[in-house]
Amino acid sequence: MKELKERILNDGRCLPGGVLKVDNFINHQMDPMLMKSMAEEFVRRFAGAEINKILTVEASGIAPAIMVGYQLGLPVVFAKKNKPSTMENMLVTEVFSFTKNKTYNICVSRDYLQSGDKVLFIDDFLANGNAGKGIIDLVEQAGAELVGMGFLIEKAFQKGGELLRGAGVHVESLAIIESLDNCEVRFKE
Amino acid sequence: MKELKERILNDGRCLPGGVLKVDNFINHQMDPMLMKSMAEEFVRRFAGAEINKILTVEASGIAPAIMVGYQLGLPVVFAKKNKPSTMENMLVTEVFSFTKNKTYNICVSRDYLQSGDKVLFIDDFLANGNAGKGIIDLVEQAGAELVGMGFLIEKAFQKGGELLRGAGVHVESLAIIESLDNCEVRFKE
Repeated sequence: MKELKERILNDGRCLPGGVLKVDNFINHQMDPMLMKSMAEEFVRRFAGAEINKILTVEASGIAPAIMVGYQLGLPVVFAKKNKPSTMENMLVTEVFSFTKNKTYNICVSRDYLQSGDKVLFIDDFLANGNAGKGIIDLVEQAGAELVGMGFLIEKAFQKGGELLRGAGVHVESLAIIESLDNCEVRFKE
Repeated sequence: MKELKERILNDGRCLPGGVLKVDNFINHQMDPMLMKSMAEEFVRRFAGAEINKILTVEASGIAPAIMVGYQLGLPVVFAKKNKPSTMENMLVTEVFSFTKNKTYNICVSRDYLQSGDKVLFIDDFLANGNAGKGIIDLVEQAGAELVGMGFLIEKAFQKGGELLRGAGVHVESLAIIESLDNCEVRFKE
């Protein structure tokens, strides 16, 4: 998606270790106009698929997911990273974060992810695919169907894309970064 | 706001201890159409105010905030509850959560909250006002100006509304709950 790639080149910052910082427009300060354009692009890419629910993970996935949900007229569920004290009847799975080098749980209420649901998952980054694997597990536990996964930015030099596509998931990423070597952003064409 | 009050009466659930659960349409599963309507109502209530930035706190504030930002064409910054490892140059403040009975930090980058900013804060709940106090502190640290605070739901039987209005903040809440006694929702007219 041209608009996103240009924005990454203009406003993204590269840190050592393959980290791309986009906290100027995606995951700390957010550009709502860009969020809407990106959501429209997801709607185009998943057109024709039967979907009844958008799923994401707090916190950075919420903005793009709510924009997709708004355009499709569908409810949006965000998985939580800590089990809320007032929440029972949860589906839980473990996710390992390379960035933070620790394991955490993500959970979703059985009331909002159910057998028969046809789920489109939306998130900001696809890197090692660990959150994605956790989502697959939650969707399976619920007996729901994963229609696809849409990511704003995919790091093709990490193994998440291969892993999820290899598992048969329809993955769409709006900007695919082939390499960040020497802090130069190279997109996959 | 009539639409929100009706939704609370239809889909909200009351738990012992003055807890109102709205995880069906606000803070776990979200209704994007309602989010948009609520954002429009905030835009009306803060019409005429000079605003250049929307501020919220992860995670439940993000959806209403991004909808407000979209309608006003303004950037949206979400304060984080854990200091990200790749983030430097932060403004930090302490917030005590009654629900979780613990103190946590919220933080925002100095890059995205600056002197001269005219900030509208948006969040889902106003209860004891502790997150609100934290936001006032962050805005002051930045040398920015707090134009107002908009909440989806205010619990008038807790002290947050009084505290923030007493501090001179322009507070707007879309549904004000006067009591949850015997788990009956009574709105303030």
